[in-house]
Amino acid sequence: MSELQTQISGLRALVKKIKSYEEAVGLIYWDMRTGLPKKGVEGRSEVVGVLSGEMFRLSVSDEMGGYLDYLDREDRLAQLSAIDRKIVRECRKEYDRSKKIPPEKFEAYVVLTSQSESVWEEAKDKADYAMFQPYLEKIVETNLEFIELWGYEGHKYNTLLDMYELGMTVDKLDALFGALREKLVPLVAAIQASPNKLDTSFLDQNFAKETQRSFNHHILREMGYDFEAGRLDETVHPFATGLNPGDVRITTKFVENDLLTALFGTIHEGGHALYEQNISSELLGTNLCTGTSMGIHESQSRFWENMVGRSRSFWRRYMGELQQTFSGQLDNVTAEDFYRAINEAKPSLIRIEADELTYNLHIMIRYEIEKALFSGAVKAADLPGFWNAKYKEYLGVEPSNDEEGVLQDVHWSGGSFGYFPSYSLGNMYAAQIRHTLMKEMPDFDDKIEKGELAPIKEWLTEKVYQHGKLLDPAEIIRNVTGEPLNPDYLVAYLEEKYKDIYKL
Amino acid sequence: MSELQTQISGLRALVKKIKSYEEAVGLIYWDMRTGLPKKGVEGRSEVVGVLSGEMFRLSVSDEMGGYLDYLDREDRLAQLSAIDRKIVRECRKEYDRSKKIPPEKFEAYVVLTSQSESVWEEAKDKADYAMFQPYLEKIVETNLEFIELWGYEGHKYNTLLDMYELGMTVDKLDALFGALREKLVPLVAAIQASPNKLDTSFLDQNFAKETQRSFNHHILREMGYDFEAGRLDETVHPFATGLNPGDVRITTKFVENDLLTALFGTIHEGGHALYEQNISSELLGTNLCTGTSMGIHESQSRFWENMVGRSRSFWRRYMGELQQTFSGQLDNVTAEDFYRAINEAKPSLIRIEADELTYNLHIMIRYEIEKALFSGAVKAADLPGFWNAKYKEYLGVEPSNDEEGVLQDVHWSGGSFGYFPSYSLGNMYAAQIRHTLMKEMPDFDDKIEKGELAPIKEWLTEKVYQHGKLLDPAEIIRNVTGEPLNPDYLVAYLEEKYKDIYKL
Repeated sequence: MSELQTQISGLRALVKKIKSYEEAVGLIYWDMRTGLPKKGVEGRSEVVGVLSGEMFRLSVSDEMGGYLDYLDREDRLAQLSAIDRKIVRECRKEYDRSKKIPPEKFEAYVVLTSQSESVWEEAKDKADYAMFQPYLEKIVETNLEFIELWGYEGHKYNTLLDMYELGMTVDKLDALFGALREKLVPLVAAIQASPNKLDTSFLDQNFAKETQRSFNHHILREMGYDFEAGRLDETVHPFATGLNPGDVRITTKFVENDLLTALFGTIHEGGHALYEQNISSELLGTNLCTGTSMGIHESQSRFWENMVGRSRSFWRRYMGELQQTFSGQLDNVTAEDFYRAINEAKPSLIRIEADELTYNLHIMIRYEIEKALFSGAVKAADLPGFWNAKYKEYLGVEPSNDEEGVLQDVHWSGGSFGYFPSYSLGNMYAAQIRHTLMKEMPDFDDKIEKGELAPIKEWLTEKVYQHGKLLDPAEIIRNVTGEPLNPDYLVAYLEEKYKDIYKL
Repeated sequence: MSELQTQISGLRALVKKIKSYEEAVGLIYWDMRTGLPKKGVEGRSEVVGVLSGEMFRLSVSDEMGGYLDYLDREDRLAQLSAIDRKIVRECRKEYDRSKKIPPEKFEAYVVLTSQSESVWEEAKDKADYAMFQPYLEKIVETNLEFIELWGYEGHKYNTLLDMYELGMTVDKLDALFGALREKLVPLVAAIQASPNKLDTSFLDQNFAKETQRSFNHHILREMGYDFEAGRLDETVHPFATGLNPGDVRITTKFVENDLLTALFGTIHEGGHALYEQNISSELLGTNLCTGTSMGIHESQSRFWENMVGRSRSFWRRYMGELQQTFSGQLDNVTAEDFYRAINEAKPSLIRIEADELTYNLHIMIRYEIEKALFSGAVKAADLPGFWNAKYKEYLGVEPSNDEEGVLQDVHWSGGSFGYFPSYSLGNMYAAQIRHTLMKEMPDFDDKIEKGELAPIKEWLTEKVYQHGKLLDPAEIIRNVTGEPLNPDYLVAYLEEKYKDIYKL
């Protein structure tokens, strides 16, 4: 073996080892959320500590440093396969990020965010922002220190954005979100002002949990979710976790008097899962065997949830089965009635309960706040006022307290700044990808109406899923659609959909 | 801190780390058996390989060697607490065992047993012993090599026995089993010859799985199994696994036309679980935080399954609830009818289906074979004949093929020689402990009949469970009962129970 081969084989073995730890930790987290007995939590958390510590140690080890010293040089990278080259670059990114933070600073930050998460939970329950504020201040401050150590170009917040969406910047987001907001705010207002209201009264019934479960299983199978490579469980907060491509688990939340929570939660997580189940086996055991970014991942959950699951064609196909499944409960509801009811749009206070249209405005508010926090334009103390003013401005509603306002999301308490934009980026990516898909597959709607979802999944596998993290988000969107991310597709999609539904 | 303190703290931290790996691997195995999607198995097995490898590496590391060099000297051990002293001794045992086998020999053995397990499965299906024989030969041969490396006193098989039951030898087992066999063979024959047969016809019904599940949950709660520190799931082969004392999971197998399989399986695994759930918190995170031996562990599962669960008093208490639970199905069955039916004894071919009485004879046959294999008195090629002759001699039955004969158990295919005796040792320990318990708690049967099982669990916790591996099996039995293991208690218990049931 040449020295180059020896080095890259060594790096691959080390990466595979790190992935094994990650998989074990992933399973432990899944178990914690689905059924770990209460008294086992403390001991199990220590196990997570040991394994995560070891995983971190390996990723910044001298062994890793040695491989990178040798391999991460343009002349040597040029001799590697595209996969190997990208493996090296991902390791480098991770290595530099971790190495630049002094270990004692990082440990203090882990303690801080862990305390902060419990304080936030209590503060939220009590709608007491003052309780949480000092923790938020400290977390922002520490992130600002980290940003100095990591380095930044332009806006400091760019460094955080880049962690979730490679190459994303404030300049780009300002343009994307500006274009979106300009069209969505008036659309939401027009819907509000319209005399046409949707009848959702038939949704106000009791839907037996076991029947919901079996219908959800059916829909997942229709989407092409592979139950030999996954399972559906129940949790308070739904999630998808790709432990390996042969074991991609999803969870949902069943609510007896609400058919939609579990159903669209399942389809959403199912979309994430299709991505992870269909990554090319060439990437197995590498750091590329995962979705390429939060935004692209979210594009797939939202594509399946909203653009397939909340489409008219979908219910033309599945309404009959839904009626049969909940025998007698929805007999007089037509597919059209159902389609309109599940797409009701109205401004609301809580992000996770928001509809497809207004959701983006919730995200923009959070983006504006994060941007202002990291430029110093706003202080933690000002957040409740800033938040409430933005809700008034974008959505025309105002929280009556901080529980339904600035305290509603868990993200900031854990230090996840830069994450929120992914949700709307996902919507934009999804609409743009859908546009191309409909050009290449003109009978897209007909296919859905016939329940032929397999070709759609196959198209997405070819264009997106198989590549895992081998391609960057910008490459994915350009390769698939021929242009960079463009908010107009989402605007056009939403305007068409909602003007039709509300007969504007 | 003194050097002694530094060293023991270091050792404890290393042991805790090893235990964390063990816990993670334990959870992975639980998940593999309860619900891992088929396509995830391959990737997950590699994760097990990485974590087990690391665990092994730590247990034979230079770091471990250094602690042992310093601490494992009589003058220093004398300065340690009893717990710390035992921690050191356990590490030494493990370290020496592992260090004495050259790594390449051990790896070859792991491959051999893994192949052998699949070959055994196929050979069993085809009742084709010849297929399995070369693997068995090789496994015995390798174990003989290992025994030479580990060293032995007296019979070579002693070294294997000691792995599962500290201090157990062929001489001791010959005496114990000899005494047992001398009484049990005639008792079994007397039952066979007796004109008194038991009516078990009412067991021949369909018992709905969900109803069985809820009754099993109820009985576990009555035993004092803590559902906040465990859970009950379903698997083909029931087991209990103590991941940590706050997370001790059990599984059972529900069979619709057989009430007893799940019920007594659950009580059996519940007994193992009570042991693990009630280990003293002083031993948390150490290598002593587990049952002290296979034999003592099995004594607890069998005590609860047979001496509580299959007792007359138990059904005097729970028959009414069983009747209510399976409404209409057992209305005309008295507690006495039920008690007798669940204790039917008859010679059979399959160990895992055997009753409390004849079970011991199945074990003795396997013991005789293992002993003969490791003394060289018998060769792998002779096993089917030897097996069949022993079944004829001890139980009066003969297998018609090797599937229901020598191929029935998985143990040998994985190299677990020395394990089988634990099952009967468990019965003997249990009967002896029961004898003392009944002296100290003269209303033992009354308590059961009132459903007051808590004092029994508490007594066992005080005498056995809390000590984990701090005390050796021989210390446990002597401390609890005032004498070494004595087979007479089991003989007396079985004679009393079965002479009464069969009116001999």
